[in-house]
Amino acid sequence: MDLGKFIRDIPDFPKKGILFKDITPLLGNSDGFTAAVNTVAEHFKNSKIEAVAGIESRGFILGSALALRLGVGFIPIRKPGKLPYKTKKCEYKLEYGSDAVEIHEDAIKKGQRILLVDDVIATGGTAAASASLIKEIGGNLVGIAFLVELKELKGVEKLPGENIFSVLSY
Amino acid sequence: MDLGKFIRDIPDFPKKGILFKDITPLLGNSDGFTAAVNTVAEHFKNSKIEAVAGIESRGFILGSALALRLGVGFIPIRKPGKLPYKTKKCEYKLEYGSDAVEIHEDAIKKGQRILLVDDVIATGGTAAASASLIKEIGGNLVGIAFLVELKELKGVEKLPGENIFSVLSY
Repeated sequence: MDLGKFIRDIPDFPKKGILFKDITPLLGNSDGFTAAVNTVAEHFKNSKIEAVAGIESRGFILGSALALRLGVGFIPIRKPGKLPYKTKKCEYKLEYGSDAVEIHEDAIKKGQRILLVDDVIATGGTAAASASLIKEIGGNLVGIAFLVELKELKGVEKLPGENIFSVLSY
Repeated sequence: MDLGKFIRDIPDFPKKGILFKDITPLLGNSDGFTAAVNTVAEHFKNSKIEAVAGIESRGFILGSALALRLGVGFIPIRKPGKLPYKTKKCEYKLEYGSDAVEIHEDAIKKGQRILLVDDVIATGGTAAASASLIKEIGGNLVGIAFLVELKELKGVEKLPGENIFSVLSY
């Protein structure tokens, strides 16, 4: 199935000059949504994934569906202050300023095999920070999956040595 | 399966005096997560659900897994300014001030049978605003599902006449 036909280009979002890849038509299509989840599950079928970690907010969508599909639990990685229990935090640089993500410090068992999921990889800062959080609390990061990779932003260079899979690339 | 054993009480979150129901241990347990999704899917199995709408952010987790389980598409309902295409907005009152949710105006086909999903129903404001958005753009809201209902806050009273199901109640 050509999943690219469900991606909608939105000019000047979230700011002028950016051509945003809107994944909501793909998520909203029953065949497209199922096919996207199955494509990632198929790619990692021999990776013995034991839990899926998804990055807030859109990473929750593909991530939790994948967790269900793989028969494993789901771990949220969230913006600061959103998780209620004890957390570990990782800050990362943006074009202007910085941002951070958090994970519950007891979210992962030592050596647990984790698949990290987000909707889009652009500059890769959020994914790299999330990957380091997973490792910091003892997880074995066996793969990273994105629905869309924006190749010209070279985000995968921030994830050296990782097993990365993207459903669609631009 | 007793899913209540996976819910963790966090005192004084997000502010003093509130006993927060932390669902992350449930999401993170493979059996618990699957059982929670299956419990909702079983309840609505004869409702001919055609799409699941989930409320940002935690509603995305149960919602998208349910969409996959039911073989239908997923529709995100988000905080203002997050959705890239043309939106409809619904404001609602909080204890102090107000908040709002948005939906893409083309997210739902006329008469499409929608299941609305969120993690917790407390005072019900977000759910009621989300329900009205679904109807405003032509959806047929056939059910609303929550992982946790906080009964003493009487949120269901803001959703009169709706077919509501909660996995756990406190």
